[in-house]
Amino acid sequence: MRIAIVNPNASASMTAMVLNTARGLAAPGTHIEAATNEDGPLSIEGTVDGALAVPGMLARMKRAQEAGAHAHIIACFDDTGLDAARSLLEKPVIGIGEAGAKAASFLASRFTVVTTLSCSVPILEENLRRYGLADRATVRASEMAVLALEADPGQAEARISDEIEKAIAQDRAEAVVLGCAGMTALAAGLSRRHGLPVVDGVAAAVKFAEALCALGVGTARRGLYAPPRDAAAKRKDGEERR
Amino acid sequence: MRIAIVNPNASASMTAMVLNTARGLAAPGTHIEAATNEDGPLSIEGTVDGALAVPGMLARMKRAQEAGAHAHIIACFDDTGLDAARSLLEKPVIGIGEAGAKAASFLASRFTVVTTLSCSVPILEENLRRYGLADRATVRASEMAVLALEADPGQAEARISDEIEKAIAQDRAEAVVLGCAGMTALAAGLSRRHGLPVVDGVAAAVKFAEALCALGVGTARRGLYAPPRDAAAKRKDGEERR
Amino acid sequence: MRIAIVNPNASASMTAMVLNTARGLAAPGTHIEAATNEDGPLSIEGTVDGALAVPGMLARMKRAQEAGAHAHIIACFDDTGLDAARSLLEKPVIGIGEAGAKAASFLASRFTVVTTLSCSVPILEENLRRYGLADRATVRASEMAVLALEADPGQAEARISDEIEKAIAQDRAEAVVLGCAGMTALAAGLSRRHGLPVVDGVAAAVKFAEALCALGVGTARRGLYAPPRDAAAKRKDGEERR
Amino acid sequence: MRIAIVNPNASASMTAMVLNTARGLAAPGTHIEAATNEDGPLSIEGTVDGALAVPGMLARMKRAQEAGAHAHIIACFDDTGLDAARSLLEKPVIGIGEAGAKAASFLASRFTVVTTLSCSVPILEENLRRYGLADRATVRASEMAVLALEADPGQAEARISDEIEKAIAQDRAEAVVLGCAGMTALAAGLSRRHGLPVVDGVAAAVKFAEALCALGVGTARRGLYAPPRDAAAKRKDGEERR
Amino acid sequence: MRIAIVNPNASASMTAMVLNTARGLAAPGTHIEAATNEDGPLSIEGTVDGALAVPGMLARMKRAQEAGAHAHIIACFDDTGLDAARSLLEKPVIGIGEAGAKAASFLASRFTVVTTLSCSVPILEENLRRYGLADRATVRASEMAVLALEADPGQAEARISDEIEKAIAQDRAEAVVLGCAGMTALAAGLSRRHGLPVVDGVAAAVKFAEALCALGVGTARRGLYAPPRDAAAKRKDGEERR
Amino acid sequence: MRIAIVNPNASASMTAMVLNTARGLAAPGTHIEAATNEDGPLSIEGTVDGALAVPGMLARMKRAQEAGAHAHIIACFDDTGLDAARSLLEKPVIGIGEAGAKAASFLASRFTVVTTLSCSVPILEENLRRYGLADRATVRASEMAVLALEADPGQAEARISDEIEKAIAQDRAEAVVLGCAGMTALAAGLSRRHGLPVVDGVAAAVKFAEALCALGVGTARRGLYAPPRDAAAKRKDGEERR
Repeated sequence: MRIAIVNPNASASMTAMVLNTARGLAAPGTHIEAATNEDGPLSIEGTVDGALAVPGMLARMKRAQEAGAHAHIIACFDDTGLDAARSLLEKPVIGIGEAGAKAASFLASRFTVVTTLSCSVPILEENLRRYGLADRATVRASEMAVLALEADPGQAEARISDEIEKAIAQDRAEAVVLGCAGMTALAAGLSRRHGLPVVDGVAAAVKFAEALCALGVGTARRGLYAPPRDAAAKRKDGEERR
Repeated sequence: MRIAIVNPNASASMTAMVLNTARGLAAPGTHIEAATNEDGPLSIEGTVDGALAVPGMLARMKRAQEAGAHAHIIACFDDTGLDAARSLLEKPVIGIGEAGAKAASFLASRFTVVTTLSCSVPILEENLRRYGLADRATVRASEMAVLALEADPGQAEARISDEIEKAIAQDRAEAVVLGCAGMTALAAGLSRRHGLPVVDGVAAAVKFAEALCALGVGTARRGLYAPPRDAAAKRKDGEERR
Repeated sequence: MRIAIVNPNASASMTAMVLNTARGLAAPGTHIEAATNEDGPLSIEGTVDGALAVPGMLARMKRAQEAGAHAHIIACFDDTGLDAARSLLEKPVIGIGEAGAKAASFLASRFTVVTTLSCSVPILEENLRRYGLADRATVRASEMAVLALEADPGQAEARISDEIEKAIAQDRAEAVVLGCAGMTALAAGLSRRHGLPVVDGVAAAVKFAEALCALGVGTARRGLYAPPRDAAAKRKDGEERR
Repeated sequence: MRIAIVNPNASASMTAMVLNTARGLAAPGTHIEAATNEDGPLSIEGTVDGALAVPGMLARMKRAQEAGAHAHIIACFDDTGLDAARSLLEKPVIGIGEAGAKAASFLASRFTVVTTLSCSVPILEENLRRYGLADRATVRASEMAVLALEADPGQAEARISDEIEKAIAQDRAEAVVLGCAGMTALAAGLSRRHGLPVVDGVAAAVKFAEALCALGVGTARRGLYAPPRDAAAKRKDGEERR
Repeated sequence: MRIAIVNPNASASMTAMVLNTARGLAAPGTHIEAATNEDGPLSIEGTVDGALAVPGMLARMKRAQEAGAHAHIIACFDDTGLDAARSLLEKPVIGIGEAGAKAASFLASRFTVVTTLSCSVPILEENLRRYGLADRATVRASEMAVLALEADPGQAEARISDEIEKAIAQDRAEAVVLGCAGMTALAAGLSRRHGLPVVDGVAAAVKFAEALCALGVGTARRGLYAPPRDAAAKRKDGEERR
Repeated sequence: MRIAIVNPNASASMTAMVLNTARGLAAPGTHIEAATNEDGPLSIEGTVDGALAVPGMLARMKRAQEAGAHAHIIACFDDTGLDAARSLLEKPVIGIGEAGAKAASFLASRFTVVTTLSCSVPILEENLRRYGLADRATVRASEMAVLALEADPGQAEARISDEIEKAIAQDRAEAVVLGCAGMTALAAGLSRRHGLPVVDGVAAAVKFAEALCALGVGTARRGLYAPPRDAAAKRKDGEERR
């Protein structure tokens, strides 16, 4: 089974970190590759970064499909371009934000997502609303920027820990989801420290991708996920009618 | 990895069918057992059957935990007693209804659940509402009773096929979920026939159970899923205050 | 008019307290009986207690129907097994949680439920969502366990009073609902003390049961509340098709 | 116990019909009066009629309070001016639309309201949304105008019967609520004929009014239902600050 | 283009203030008139004031229509009688509360309304829910009564400023809407002071009224906004059937 | 006042049609320009076209801001990239889909959007949900592709007319919104023909853009619409911490 991860941003070190987590969790027989979107922004903070990342990301995912991927993972917690990727591709496509939230929904009736900067909070809240989980989830910002996570992991863990304390006390969180691919190394430690399930979206996406592949199902090819039509097909609409 | 399936109803033949599907899909190294709730009703149609099935089901799940299960699956599409099982047990607990619906939500923006009798429709609609998927899902009854599925699989497949046609035309369904454990053998054939993803909840539950085990997470032990207290602990509440 | 109350838990003293409130409020000509579910848990704290209480509770309600009850009341604020009871029985079935919340909804645009332990909060929040009242209601825990209410009523009243103060200040509560059958004796005093309507679910259930009986209506016998089928009828589904 | 009914429209014959139903159902010791709003429109069809009816209705309700009423009923299924009446008065105020819908919600998980003209449908749908029952209710118009109900009861019953058939087949209705005070005489016959609970809002309002009186609770006096301030008090706001 | 503003309350000085704002913003060629509802309450605080204001307000709006108005504005932030006015009139009708909230929804993903007294908070929350904006809006009371705004503008500005600070810190407000026609003069200053968009509903209503007129569209004449029928038409319903 | 329209797709003829409508409606003193996104797809059908259109669209909007635009309009009914544009720019940004729906919401309590192909239906439904209008709106596809609208306007008008008939009969539509920039020429004729308000999103966006400019407000610069940070600023996050 071949799983293709794409990091929509241009940070090769984050891609490496994500790939490391993914391979550590992969089942025997699962082959995982990861591509960095060098054409994208350095990190994805907010809707402009997200919008600029998508075309380069889709191109790399298309290439992965041509190379025979059995499932695709978008390694940004914003699930950037998820619907477009599903419409473009035939195999299952999983966003790490969606995977993390849905994994938590099997374990807890309420959970809190701890993300990086507050500019991401409304984006994640809207995603959770679309996934139907907004009523049982809270989103908190650690105010650690994406690149700061790598530069100062100790500080990152401390800040995230503080937010987990608040989540338990103020949000009635029963579980926590780490809201950035760059936090993937921290899940196990934080879970032990706080005594509740801490879900890493990268890990969840890898195992759910394996699961969907094993079920032998692909992405729907109709409705929202109908394949796009090319320029030639569109031109015919007009020509036929003249 | 040991996964314990419980069939909340008393039909040993349905348990065998479910176990057969589950073992066919299990990853190497996954050991699957299934228990039949001989104390439960012959099939689960409606809320009374569901309520009467739960105590016997919980007792068998508890035994499976003592025997070292790493994850638990409730093999009734109504997800009978799911919250109680999560509160009682430490490892992940997955209902096949929840698993089927969440699997479909990774593949399609709208889907239809095809179940057995119309008495189950409001129960499944309510579950989908709780999972946050009611806005994107429709529930249809094939009017094949649970035991009729086994007795006349050809008729079952024909009736379910008719509902899938209606789901595509009237519900704008992009994918279908089979709404009864007794339909587990039909998914692949129906998917080929109708050209859209058809998800079997039993299969989805097995792969998601493996996924959650691999993530090393358990069920939350606080909030809705806090462990129950025994009679002795409750009596102390009173005695302490006299 | 005969109203049958069932206490789903095994505490005979709570049954006596509930019966005392109920008879104190009954209209002339209303005969009220109460049964204790000796087969149930000592108190109902959380979903496991609830699940284990239902079969014994349903058996006693069925007996009350055979004895000629004109309406049934489930005397646990969690409304344990309410849907199953409605499906099983022909006469109106009222849960004290539902009755208390709906009574408050005639009097106030926002109200707060003050219950016992925090493990009950998510259960009551979910019930309020199902009743359509979640947007206008808040649930608070007094952290007095059910049996502690009886053992130390003074402390119970003090703790509940503190929560009512917070409800007025923080929840903009216009009315309060007492969230446990064991609080039935406190409503009038708390209402005077805090100057807002304080609704006791037991009292509300008794008067609403009398109201529904007087209307001459029963529980719907179709859809979610269609009567259960017995094993013989289920077996025929299969046999007919072989 | 004294219950004061107000008919917001100017039709004395409808007031008489409502009073007849109400007295037929009143418990021993309940004294019921009904006032007609001669200053209001001949019938209430739509939002303009509703708006013009409220001041005259409130004046009559205030008079009933001064005369010692223990509860108030607004006998228009639109629940015209219900919030204003609750803010103005101290005792419980019940709208027949709210009472009918909440009575049905104790008996059925889905119900259909059959009203007069289609101009009332969006008004009732909005009320049901506010009561939290929109998800489980459908509203249908019989296209019998209010005054036509009285003039041709046979035709009215036939038209309403047709809508009940459609409600069972198309809305999955488990119960029906009659959506106009002028239909109060038809409930029992339609219930027998269609074999499901048919709730009359007038009857439900009378019994719920008795129930709330017996509970000894009044309308909340804060938040949405805080009492209005008079012109003198308002003038002081300004004067104090000059 | 002629725009007719009606102030539903009896305060001529507030009408003058509103007219002053409106004329200051009107496009060349827009003629604006404003009527005071001398039959209404001195100010509109709560649902009783609102209900009593509507008949006099509708009469003045009808007169404005006869005088050739191309659009109508209701100058009370509660949008008192908005649906009835739309049903009564043919040209667009805009409430200043609706206009302010919808203007903010073009500029910000979350906003806070700062109104006068807390009795208005639940009314505005309900309006925002009906406009579909409740999920992205918070309502705060400055506790400045309507008439106090005029009497002590400095104090008013200070109190509103305090609430804007809280809105930014606690509500994550990205913009603010001033929740009373009497605040119309304060928008620009508060916007500069707090560095976020501050929308005045009066100003927004004037510009949106000009916009809808320019589109050449009127209010829908069917469904909720179907024109009311007169007494003669209603009487015919009955007579025809005898 | 300068309003900058961007057509996110590459069809210059559609840009010309939109500009023609816009200039025909512009107030005296409003200067309108329109840019075509030559880097975008030929038309926007579905999420992939939308995603590929955004970077080129944002670049053109940024240029328009530098050229002194006072407001921006995105001339695709999908409101492609609307949030990103708001985050990138300082002046108001309006999508024609949002403008059309919000204009209709001032005129009707229920409306139907008639769009091009069914692949756009779920996108528009999701947008309406985000705008809070999903409960009062229905979306229908005429199955006329974008380029076919231009090639065969007669056929287009006939197909849209058929859907308007269905909208009135089946959706209880009180008004209609034309769901594609390419339909901008048809609004007036369809409104006369069907006797209900027919709103063109292009026209609505132009007038609302003028309205917001006149109010002197800009897009919020915090929360979801906080300006993006450049690569240099992001790098500093990391460097500062090493």
